[in-house]
Parts: sequence; structure tokens; C-alpha cells
Amino acid sequence: MTSATSPFAPVEAELSALSENLKKLIGARHPVLYAAAEHLFATRGKGLRPALVLLVARATMPGHDITVRHRQLAEITEMIHTASLVHDDVIDTADVRRGVDTVNHLFDNRVAVLAGDYLFGKAAWYLASLDDLEVVKLLSKVIMDLPEGEIRQSLTRFDAGLSIDDYLEKSFYKTASLMSGSAKAAAVLSGVEPELAEHLYEFGRHFGIAFQIVDDILDFTGSEEILGKPVGSDLSQGNLTAPVLFALRSQPQLEPLIERQFAQPDDLQQALAWIQDSDGLEQSRELAAKHVHLAMEHLSSLPPSVSRQALIDLTEQALSRTY
Amino acid sequence: MTSATSPFAPVEAELSALSENLKKLIGARHPVLYAAAEHLFATRGKGLRPALVLLVARATMPGHDITVRHRQLAEITEMIHTASLVHDDVIDTADVRRGVDTVNHLFDNRVAVLAGDYLFGKAAWYLASLDDLEVVKLLSKVIMDLPEGEIRQSLTRFDAGLSIDDYLEKSFYKTASLMSGSAKAAAVLSGVEPELAEHLYEFGRHFGIAFQIVDDILDFTGSEEILGKPVGSDLSQGNLTAPVLFALRSQPQLEPLIERQFAQPDDLQQALAWIQDSDGLEQSRELAAKHVHLAMEHLSSLPPSVSRQALIDLTEQALSRTY
Repeated sequence: MTSATSPFAPVEAELSALSENLKKLIGARHPVLYAAAEHLFATRGKGLRPALVLLVARATMPGHDITVRHRQLAEITEMIHTASLVHDDVIDTADVRRGVDTVNHLFDNRVAVLAGDYLFGKAAWYLASLDDLEVVKLLSKVIMDLPEGEIRQSLTRFDAGLSIDDYLEKSFYKTASLMSGSAKAAAVLSGVEPELAEHLYEFGRHFGIAFQIVDDILDFTGSEEILGKPVGSDLSQGNLTAPVLFALRSQPQLEPLIERQFAQPDDLQQALAWIQDSDGLEQSRELAAKHVHLAMEHLSSLPPSVSRQALIDLTEQALSRTY
Repeated sequence: MTSATSPFAPVEAELSALSENLKKLIGARHPVLYAAAEHLFATRGKGLRPALVLLVARATMPGHDITVRHRQLAEITEMIHTASLVHDDVIDTADVRRGVDTVNHLFDNRVAVLAGDYLFGKAAWYLASLDDLEVVKLLSKVIMDLPEGEIRQSLTRFDAGLSIDDYLEKSFYKTASLMSGSAKAAAVLSGVEPELAEHLYEFGRHFGIAFQIVDDILDFTGSEEILGKPVGSDLSQGNLTAPVLFALRSQPQLEPLIERQFAQPDDLQQALAWIQDSDGLEQSRELAAKHVHLAMEHLSSLPPSVSRQALIDLTEQALSRTY
């Protein structure tokens, strides 16, 4: 992902520094949190979300260096994202995420709740120190949206009547809110015109939704080895995503299996087979492609630059990724 | 607490509206959160923290009405406080708090983590909408301090070497940070001079520390009926507070019992007896009185008013309360 031709290349130096800074910021005084921070920021590698912030920073300030505040914003996005992963793991009682032991498994729920709260709190405080009320508003909206997404997901488990619109809204809260809010915030810190800042918000929103749809497709088409979790694990937990919701239209026999929460021995395998047989995956790919296309359109409002091209490449890759 | 002569009297109307507003704010769309919110804000009654904010508001704007932003700040403090209680309950795996079932017991850890995150997030967002960067900084520091306090408490369980200074620092993070930050924020929203705002910060800090010390005394002297938890429950969980730390000075035989985490059948009863026999409770009362006195001194920088008197009364009552 970080070879010379990777879309991360224009901000590679900043991304390398980011992990180290985060470990210092989080773990300064608490050995347990330090261990958690090391684990979180080391194993997860260089993040997509800070890369988006840094690339938008470069693309909106052609000829200028990335500022300290842009770098701090990139760190804040990674802190918020990590905090929400740590709490999601308590909620899902997940033992493994992407093949790596989760904090609540390595330590316990107690440390996971505290570590997440600490990361959210530190992010909120760090955010205020950027001294820009518009940026504070954008990112605190994100901190509010993330649990909203989880709550919606939690309330609609095994609800076969969920519409694609509900699914897209939930995906906004869970994933696209952070990408849209932080892409716009990076532009605001660059001092761009409100119209361009809004284009970057819309870029992040469509990118985030496409990213989530592809994530949801991979739950059916990915390999357990690469995903670090069994195929169909969202489905088995009642998290109904685009492929299932589209499949339900042509395969209504899926509905009773979902409603009985895959209680019979072969229910889950049968449901997975019907979804594969349907055009649900194809329709999901088309929906993701539509949002990738819209994201690209909004990028075209940026002046041409290496970083704009990197954002375009990242957006294209969101569609073809297999992990 | 809310009779005509109560210190809450000058802000009684605002406090009554607060519970209802919070229920509307939190529970608008989610039945589970609504149930949690009803439960949290209804059973806990009128809050001390919003009362402090509203009284400071009145005392710093003599002759003027409490503003909408002051009322919102009061709501924010109650949201932050409630969010931290909800997460503390997951951490302590408490089933009962003050005689009322906790959210994680009534629902489950999943809902408790989400409800807490949602409250923190909503508070952060609502805070940004106050449009005052200094206020955002003050309260986001609080959101960072609360888990810091819990982490410190968690890391020093059964550590008989804890100093009174460490204990006071931990108490600041856990309790006094919210009171100091929000008292100052209320003054900032009133547009007072920086010096007076700082006095209100110091008032809140000393008030909060005194309040926490009294809380910790009540763990030994209160009745299970009133506290809703067994006498000595902090001690049994290894949370070493002022009375124990002072008692250790004259009763060093306490140390091995603490270090073996009260593993022998009579350890806890024996420790409680030694603490009662020591001057630990008396020294703790003196320490609380010292902070009450300091809090009062800072209040004297306010112009005389009914609300200043109410703040003085509240501060005095912090010392004599039995619940």
C-alpha cells in the first residue's frame, strides 16, 4: 500500500510519524493504555482516514507544506476511529478483528471501555486545541454520529424489512460521517472557499458510503484468511447489508430464515447460497460504483495536483479492494 | 432538597425543565435509549452539577435572566456526568447504584456502552453549538479527565502506597474537573472578567474535591439503606480513599490485609474496625473542611446575591450531607 506508486505516497512521511505520535499521546503515563495503544496503532498500520486528511490538505494548499494543525487533525481522525473500534469490540464481544486479538480480549471489557473513552476524550480535547470552531463542530458531529450508527445497526438486527435507504443512512453514521467531516475539516483548515469545502464533504460522504458497501460485499466474497473473520459473519449476527437487502427482492424465501435468526442447522449456509445465486452482489457493486463515481465528480472541483490524483486513485481502489 | 429554603431554590424552575429536555434530547428516536434516558434522568432527580452551573449563571449576571446557553451548558454537564456513570457501571459491573438498577443490569453492557458513547457524543456536539471556543476547551478537558480518573483508580487498586496527593489528583479527575470546568464555563458565558472566571474555577475545584472526600467518608459511615450499596464497598474493591490512607499512618497492620486484597474471611471486617478506631475519618473530615473553606473564599469574589448565598449554602451542606 505504501510503494512509490501508492496513493499514500504524497503523504508517506507524515503517515509514518503519525503512529509514533499517537503512541506517545495516548500511552504517556499509563502502562496498560500504552500497551493498548501500541497494539492498536502498531498492528493496524497506516490509516486510510489520516491519509485522506493529509491528501486533502496537500490538494487544497498547492505549493505549501502540510501544517501542524492538518497533522493534528489526521491524528484526531485516527483516534476517533480507533476509539470507536475499541468500543465496537465490546459491543460485538469480538475476540478477533482482522486477524488481530481485540483489546477487550487481550485485556478485558473494563480496559476496553476506559481506553475508548480516553481516546474519545483526548480527541475532543485535542480538537478544541485546533482553535477552529467550524472544525470542532464538524468532528464533534462525527463523535455523535458513530454511536448513532451502532445503535441503528443494533436496533435493526434480523429486520428483513430494512430498506436500502435505511441501510445507506446507517452506513453514513457508521463510516461516511468521519470521512466526510474530516475531509471537509482539512479543507477548512486550508482556508478554502465554503463551496470547495462542501465539495470535499460530499467527496468524503460518497467515498465513505462506497467503502462501507464494498466492506459489506467482502463479508460474502472475501476469504476468512484475509478478512480475519468467517465469511457471512455480518449476516450471522443479523447485520443486514446491501447484498442481502438486494437479494431479498428476488429471493423472498430468505426472509423466514433471517426472521428466525438462522436457528435451524443449515439456515446460514442456505442463506449464503441463495445470496450468491441472486444478483444481490452485482447490484451492491453497482451501488458502490455509483457512489465512487459521485465521489470522483466532487474531486474534480480541486485544482489538478499529485495529491488530487492520489485521492482519485484511492477512490478507484475502494471499489477493487479485496481486503 | 428543593423546598423554598433549599440552595436549589433560585434555579428550581430551570432544574425542573432540565430533566424533561434531556429525555427529549436523548430519547427522541431510539426506544431503547429512551428507556435508558427515562431511567437515568428520572430516577436520579435534580442534579447538583446543573444546579451549580445555573447558580453561577445567576450570580454572575445579577439582574439578568439565565440565558439559553447557560441552560444548555447545565444540560451538557448532566449529560457528561450521566455518560460517565453509565460507563463506570460497565467498568465496576455494578448492578445497583444508589438503590436503583443500573443501565447495564437492566439492559446489557452493549446498550450501556452505546448509551454512554451517545451521551458523550451528543454532549460534545451540543457543546460545539454553544459557539464559544473557551467553553468548548473547558468542557472537552473534562471529557478527557473523567476516564483519566477512572484509569488512575483502576491502576492503584489495593496499592497501600498511594499518597494523599495521588488520591487528591485522582479525585480531581473523577469529580472536581467537571465542577471546576463547568463553573468557570458558566462564568465565561456570562462574559465576566478572566480573574473572576478563574475564581469560579477554583471554587468548583475545591468544592468537587471536598464533595469527593465526603463521598469517600460516607462509604464508611453511611448506612447501606441510604447509600444503596454495602458499607466499605469502595474498600472491598481496592479503591483506597482518604479515610484508609490516613488510617494507614497510625494502623500499619492494615497494609497486609489490603495487599492480600482482603482474601481471608474476616479481613474486610477487621480493616473496617481498624479504620473506625483510627483518626482516619476525623482527618478526612478536616481535609474536606479545608477544601470547603477554600471554595468559600473563592465565592467571596462574587457580588452579594441570593444565588451567591445559595452557592455558599450548597458548599456548607457538602460537608454535612449524609447521602
